[in-house]
Amino acid sequence: MAALVAKSLRRELRREYIVGGRLPSEPELAEQYGVSRGTVRQALAVLEREGVIIRRQGAGTYVHYISRAQIRAEHAREYSDLLRSSGFEPGIHLNSFHFEPLSEALAAQLDMEPQTPSLVVCKTFSANGQPAIYCIDRIPTKWIISEFVSEELERPIYDFLRDHCNLTIAHDFAELIPTVASPEVADILHVPPGSPLLRFDETGYDVVGAPVYLSTTYYHDNFVRFSVLRKRI
Amino acid sequence: MAALVAKSLRRELRREYIVGGRLPSEPELAEQYGVSRGTVRQALAVLEREGVIIRRQGAGTYVHYISRAQIRAEHAREYSDLLRSSGFEPGIHLNSFHFEPLSEALAAQLDMEPQTPSLVVCKTFSANGQPAIYCIDRIPTKWIISEFVSEELERPIYDFLRDHCNLTIAHDFAELIPTVASPEVADILHVPPGSPLLRFDETGYDVVGAPVYLSTTYYHDNFVRFSVLRKRI
Repeated sequence: MAALVAKSLRRELRREYIVGGRLPSEPELAEQYGVSRGTVRQALAVLEREGVIIRRQGAGTYVHYISRAQIRAEHAREYSDLLRSSGFEPGIHLNSFHFEPLSEALAAQLDMEPQTPSLVVCKTFSANGQPAIYCIDRIPTKWIISEFVSEELERPIYDFLRDHCNLTIAHDFAELIPTVASPEVADILHVPPGSPLLRFDETGYDVVGAPVYLSTTYYHDNFVRFSVLRKRI
Repeated sequence: MAALVAKSLRRELRREYIVGGRLPSEPELAEQYGVSRGTVRQALAVLEREGVIIRRQGAGTYVHYISRAQIRAEHAREYSDLLRSSGFEPGIHLNSFHFEPLSEALAAQLDMEPQTPSLVVCKTFSANGQPAIYCIDRIPTKWIISEFVSEELERPIYDFLRDHCNLTIAHDFAELIPTVASPEVADILHVPPGSPLLRFDETGYDVVGAPVYLSTTYYHDNFVRFSVLRKRI
């Protein structure tokens, strides 16, 4: 029961509350959910442990931050859709784009010659105006067959690859890399340098199984958390 | 081609080499794999970027560490099998076990009363004698229906739950949490405190879908790396 109440509360907090907002009292919540005060207390303990709420002795319970988006790691989704379906107002900001030759190691991941020219696109996805996901896409320029304007780089990379490269991404393979925020990434995601971050190093493959683009993504754990469901029998 | 050569080299290094061992020269590797020197150079660049090898100017190429085990995040496997199939010699060390009441937050995750007594088991899995995975399992003692000896705690938790609790785990749900090593975990995994680590917070469910145990696992990125394959079409 407590787990269910915690889940409902998490959803309600995301939809109805702002950071710093005060929650109803335990007896009020117990009545609202039709459960015992003990169950409410357990549910609040879960949310407190997650950092979603703060309980101040004698002063009540407050929203510390709006709970993160939960996503199954093996499910590919657009970040904006993901954030929106988790109750956030999503935003996209194009930090920069430029052209750069691929390093030897990056080129090898795409089975291409070192120094292959590539388009590098840096984007930030925000949740309720706060930076949540920072993404660096690298697309070999030889794929680009039609002109584009910078606004188009704010759209999902899959749209760009389809419309300007005539490429369809069939699957991507991502390595999950625990990392800490460099000063540059810390600045972009508004976290202290050295904060733990989950990084995905992703290679996208076209319909014939050839690697066609690379992507590095940093996820702010307050906003996006990945999970996996593993079947044993 | 370079990606394929890197993959073969990674496998060969795990099987045949020790840390500090010297690799054959680029022309020798080119001949061995029947590829150009350029391809060998690209493959070595990939391994260098992964930290598997170190190239010392004028002195040759050396194994920096034996490449990590790769595992699809959504596949459940025994850690010992995982490490062995990646070419490591696996080991298990029981750090400690004790009985402890569940905190309010942990109890709520199992839908149990706070202070429910639990058995806490701390284990380290090693790869070629180096600590690679640190795991803390929590099993409510009310499940335990037959006596056990401490040696049995070194076996997979699933065996223990089956043999001493008559419980079968149908699936587990894990949250992927980027974290940094606390002094305690740093000491156990032989990493500097503050090193990035991937943590899995796992809840195990029985065949009727009830949560029955909790597990927290820390993975040393040098030995185990998770990946996901995401299909888009």
